[in-house]
Amino acid sequence: MTIAPVAPSKVLAKVPVDSKARVKQFMQSLQDSICQGLEELDGKAKFKQDQWERPEGGGGRSRVITDGDYFDKGGVNFSEVFGSQLPPSILRHHPEVAGELFYATGTSMVLHPKNPYAPTVHLNYRYFEAGPIWWFGGGLDLTPYYGFAEDAKHLHTTLKETCDRHNPHYYPVFKQWCDDYFFLKHRGETRGVGGIFFDYQNGEDGLYKNSNDSTSAQVMSDEIGDVPRTWEEIFAFVQDCGNSFLPAYTPIANRRRNIEFGDREKQWQLYRRGRYVEFNLVYDRGTIFGLQTNGRTESILMSLPPLVRWDYDYHPEPNTPEAELNTTFLKPQDWVNWQV
Amino acid sequence: MTIAPVAPSKVLAKVPVDSKARVKQFMQSLQDSICQGLEELDGKAKFKQDQWERPEGGGGRSRVITDGDYFDKGGVNFSEVFGSQLPPSILRHHPEVAGELFYATGTSMVLHPKNPYAPTVHLNYRYFEAGPIWWFGGGLDLTPYYGFAEDAKHLHTTLKETCDRHNPHYYPVFKQWCDDYFFLKHRGETRGVGGIFFDYQNGEDGLYKNSNDSTSAQVMSDEIGDVPRTWEEIFAFVQDCGNSFLPAYTPIANRRRNIEFGDREKQWQLYRRGRYVEFNLVYDRGTIFGLQTNGRTESILMSLPPLVRWDYDYHPEPNTPEAELNTTFLKPQDWVNWQV
Repeated sequence: MTIAPVAPSKVLAKVPVDSKARVKQFMQSLQDSICQGLEELDGKAKFKQDQWERPEGGGGRSRVITDGDYFDKGGVNFSEVFGSQLPPSILRHHPEVAGELFYATGTSMVLHPKNPYAPTVHLNYRYFEAGPIWWFGGGLDLTPYYGFAEDAKHLHTTLKETCDRHNPHYYPVFKQWCDDYFFLKHRGETRGVGGIFFDYQNGEDGLYKNSNDSTSAQVMSDEIGDVPRTWEEIFAFVQDCGNSFLPAYTPIANRRRNIEFGDREKQWQLYRRGRYVEFNLVYDRGTIFGLQTNGRTESILMSLPPLVRWDYDYHPEPNTPEAELNTTFLKPQDWVNWQV
Repeated sequence: MTIAPVAPSKVLAKVPVDSKARVKQFMQSLQDSICQGLEELDGKAKFKQDQWERPEGGGGRSRVITDGDYFDKGGVNFSEVFGSQLPPSILRHHPEVAGELFYATGTSMVLHPKNPYAPTVHLNYRYFEAGPIWWFGGGLDLTPYYGFAEDAKHLHTTLKETCDRHNPHYYPVFKQWCDDYFFLKHRGETRGVGGIFFDYQNGEDGLYKNSNDSTSAQVMSDEIGDVPRTWEEIFAFVQDCGNSFLPAYTPIANRRRNIEFGDREKQWQLYRRGRYVEFNLVYDRGTIFGLQTNGRTESILMSLPPLVRWDYDYHPEPNTPEAELNTTFLKPQDWVNWQV
């Protein structure tokens, strides 16, 4: 795979000459280290890789793990795309880069465990560059089927520590952004216990920019004001985020993987997985954009669960763990300060 | 349920004074007759009804049948909505009716049989009125898991006979429109063997109007030119379409319901049902519009199958009935003239 031939026709302020090569190398090594850690976690199944090329420029490595000891199905994708046909969504926000060559690279992942007591998790980090503009984006969020406050607290504490090493404003804004973005409006519930999410981090503006994801994160970002940062600072932050995935998730997986369960818990997991499908196909910009612009369908939809059920107008019995998921865990909470 | 208080502030050209009451009564009686026919077909399960009200005006009757002898899950909805807050998608095409009261009513249905040899079927007929504008829309399409040319031919022949009783131009244009609309771009395949689909039938324009559903139906409609028709003529056509559902579908159901099947066929059915979810959540305007505008979620998503699987990069063995579905049945075909 070669690097996009972005001609330096405009000065890329604050971006190192080897920006694309460095980010690409990080995204690939993140995929490698995560896959290695997940194979160790599973202990039985191994990832299978499909390498693919994009006719218009770029390609990727799709890796899938199925029917393991821990995993029902999991996918970890690396991709890079480049070319001269800028996506319409980018041009709408940045008409000034029409005609520029663009480059985008990222790693994304969704894991569906077998045990209903173990949570599904999603990670995505990405980088975009076109002429003089660039940004980083991404995040990590957890979707339990049965709620455990100590799991949510562990995840959020790990993410907050990662954020705080770089900037004290990051965690509160990016936690809020995650709660707002991963929200199923038609269900009135969050996708899970959240995590962090951010986009359009270019070091020049406030933390929140150029998106209609989140109103409350916007308010928070306005209060903070501009937070100027260099490309190097943001790249270092994104690397730290990526590398904090395994310590954030694997302790939770190991706490839950051996809890005994029966048909009741399995059916509940299959039912709740329907919400994951609904979010990804109705709201997730990356998924919809990929499907409508001739992306590699099987890589995009690798995030869908292996088996899913829908039941008409189903409501769990009050005062059960299933009902408690809705009442406590599918709304924004201050998990870092939660008393467990 | 009362009728929408649409004040006759503008002259509703060609629309009878009792238009809304008559269409509503037809839509309800269509729901009744279809549900009765389907209970007879199933022979075991009965529909359960939820009656609901829309706070802003209107309401509906959602009926669901589950775990029958023939049906795995099926939903038949009647609804009417009215009020002063016109949907944005309507205002974009018809800014002149801003401030008018609107009225919309319709019956829609999706049926998922147990036996993988029996096809899923979808029906929807609807009517919209606001000030001086009005139109009818709807259609019927069939989604088999295993292809039988005689089933596709029976369905299309029944629909063509219904269309031809009203206008010789209807079937070719509406069959094409259906093939174009129920198309999964990201999979490069139709949802099934099609049927008929139309929208914006107001008697004034060509058969095809005001939509970006279909380029080939547009070309066909342009060749035909204007097809002026009265409100009564179009309403009579829609009634005939609705009433042709049972004769179009039940013979197919009865031919396939007792074919023996095993795990292979069941797994293939669950896998193919994933495509139904993908179409409904990614492309179907009614579903997306309903979810994003505070419709009754459980009624909108009643169309989703009870159990669904996704497998990464799965392809059936060549020269199997599963492979033949893709090669023959998931592309537009001239089913009426098919040699079986």
